[in-house]
Amino acid sequence: MNFPPLKNDTILRTIRGEPTSYTPVWVMRQAGRYLPEFQEVRSQHDFFKVCQTPELACEVTLQPIRRFNLDAAIIFSDILVVPQAMGLKVEMLPGQGPTFTEPLQSPSDLIRVCADIDVNEKLKYVFEAITLTRHQLDGKCPLIGFSGAPWTLMSYMIEGKGSPTISKAKKWLYCYSEDSHKLLQMLTDVIVKYLVEQVRAGAQLLQIFESHAGILSKASFLQFALPYIQQISKRVKEDLNQQGLSNVPMIIFAKDAHYALEELSACGYEVVGLDWTIEPAEARLRVGENITLQGNLDPCQLYASHNDIVKAAQGLIDKFGNRRHIANLGHGIYPDIQPDHLEAFIDAIHKHSCRS
Amino acid sequence: MNFPPLKNDTILRTIRGEPTSYTPVWVMRQAGRYLPEFQEVRSQHDFFKVCQTPELACEVTLQPIRRFNLDAAIIFSDILVVPQAMGLKVEMLPGQGPTFTEPLQSPSDLIRVCADIDVNEKLKYVFEAITLTRHQLDGKCPLIGFSGAPWTLMSYMIEGKGSPTISKAKKWLYCYSEDSHKLLQMLTDVIVKYLVEQVRAGAQLLQIFESHAGILSKASFLQFALPYIQQISKRVKEDLNQQGLSNVPMIIFAKDAHYALEELSACGYEVVGLDWTIEPAEARLRVGENITLQGNLDPCQLYASHNDIVKAAQGLIDKFGNRRHIANLGHGIYPDIQPDHLEAFIDAIHKHSCRS
Repeated sequence: MNFPPLKNDTILRTIRGEPTSYTPVWVMRQAGRYLPEFQEVRSQHDFFKVCQTPELACEVTLQPIRRFNLDAAIIFSDILVVPQAMGLKVEMLPGQGPTFTEPLQSPSDLIRVCADIDVNEKLKYVFEAITLTRHQLDGKCPLIGFSGAPWTLMSYMIEGKGSPTISKAKKWLYCYSEDSHKLLQMLTDVIVKYLVEQVRAGAQLLQIFESHAGILSKASFLQFALPYIQQISKRVKEDLNQQGLSNVPMIIFAKDAHYALEELSACGYEVVGLDWTIEPAEARLRVGENITLQGNLDPCQLYASHNDIVKAAQGLIDKFGNRRHIANLGHGIYPDIQPDHLEAFIDAIHKHSCRS
Repeated sequence: MNFPPLKNDTILRTIRGEPTSYTPVWVMRQAGRYLPEFQEVRSQHDFFKVCQTPELACEVTLQPIRRFNLDAAIIFSDILVVPQAMGLKVEMLPGQGPTFTEPLQSPSDLIRVCADIDVNEKLKYVFEAITLTRHQLDGKCPLIGFSGAPWTLMSYMIEGKGSPTISKAKKWLYCYSEDSHKLLQMLTDVIVKYLVEQVRAGAQLLQIFESHAGILSKASFLQFALPYIQQISKRVKEDLNQQGLSNVPMIIFAKDAHYALEELSACGYEVVGLDWTIEPAEARLRVGENITLQGNLDPCQLYASHNDIVKAAQGLIDKFGNRRHIANLGHGIYPDIQPDHLEAFIDAIHKHSCRS
């Protein structure tokens, strides 16, 4: 594809455990609503129209890269494009977020979900956006591709939208265990192909979002989430190898899965993302020395003054140390954060981790 | 007050670490919407009207006691009656839950909050409900009184209603630290008086609900939540003593505060409640031998078949052992649980923990 040469590989070297001159930083949802230039694009185009139009997805992916000294870009998209490609209708409803207009109500609705799809046709727009963005990024930093994890996608497909208890989807786990596994396997099969094609299109890292881990018990997580997370890393790496594609590092971010840090560190991912409820020192003890940790500033810390943000960034560097750490928030940035507050965080991470 | 003699003190003996012939069980929100007889009362009366009318609050408190073999009753009320008594208007909006019509928007709104209230006037209805219920319970089991913890109440007062990120209230912690402490102290002062008067009225145990602990970092929890939780147990015990009232055991339930189990076990409460994301064996290791643990079945487990509920109850007994454990859910029971499923849980706990 003749992509421009990579000029900043700090995040990749960090993941390999190599010394770097500073701690790399990126931020979940860095292409998003807190940026006025993003709002400008969204005022003219529906959310999923932006996802589905490679030029628009590329433009909003690059917006934070133009403003800030970031060490990675992440392709603008949504985790729900996978269930959408599998046959469920999703709409972005104002004030409610993305919503399935006809969520799965019982296992008999599984006939509406199709795993036997051609991802290169259905999700072509994502791959085109990735390729275009790799070119336009001009090697400034690596480009991250991503997918939701099977349990998180399943829970949206059943709940239809966000839910404080996720009790409808969890009811499936307790009452329709076999059908749950069937749906989770269907999602896994599509996600594996989706991630491999993202790498073929130009993604240099992959992150899996298990955003709804924290509502599960450890037993439910081990039964319904972890096996599929593990299967994904294994099969993606095998398929990349078989298809002569380069291996890429993979990040697992299972939000609020404090109960399963050991298991997450042993399921084939180079990086484990942390939310802000976990202490860095404890996480390091529990995952061992060979995993790179990502995170974990409380997103609300960015409401604070520049001075306090700088102190928090220093605290993060002090707690994680100068090896195998990618600075990030513990969740996506909130829409009402001022862009200069994010800039203060990024610059403080670079400045206070400087080792050259 | 000449209350009827207590016939079942299993929960109290469990908390003292004494041997009991079985594991006691009660369930958070056991007086609630999953019961058709509760829905019947609510169809005729507004939610807060039920709280404010001692006969109605007593009636719904007793409903689950009549149906099930429970080892404790908990007075029907709402944690938001405290901010309501301090001057903020709360309404129960259908589908949204209790909602503050004019939430606190900035620290200047603190003039609308009054800590210098006569709880015996403003919350008289709660104390009357407790006294009436103690009589009508006829000693079947102890009666639990409760309050929200300061941070949880503060977060509702600012958010106005439930919120997935609680980011408005957390913004106060990062931007208006002094005003946050001022509000938390005002709440603490009222909560202490409120709990002491609940004991005077007849409450035999007290539970504090820190329902919004899980959205805080450990640092924020230690700064803005724990000190007030600790102050409450200390002052309530001192005040009971000074006023010649009997001491009562206190339960702290800080939902999703996995990061602070050690601290919670050392802040003056006899019982620590656990949500379902914490493994019982790990909790026991971390809190030591002198704390009684309460919990922690996933509320969604009650969607399962009777057979599976019985197995889950056995699992709970096996994991917690037969000392210093009060069986409960890890959160309130959901409104769409069938009452016979709760009955299966309660009976299985008694049967499988039987030691006589």
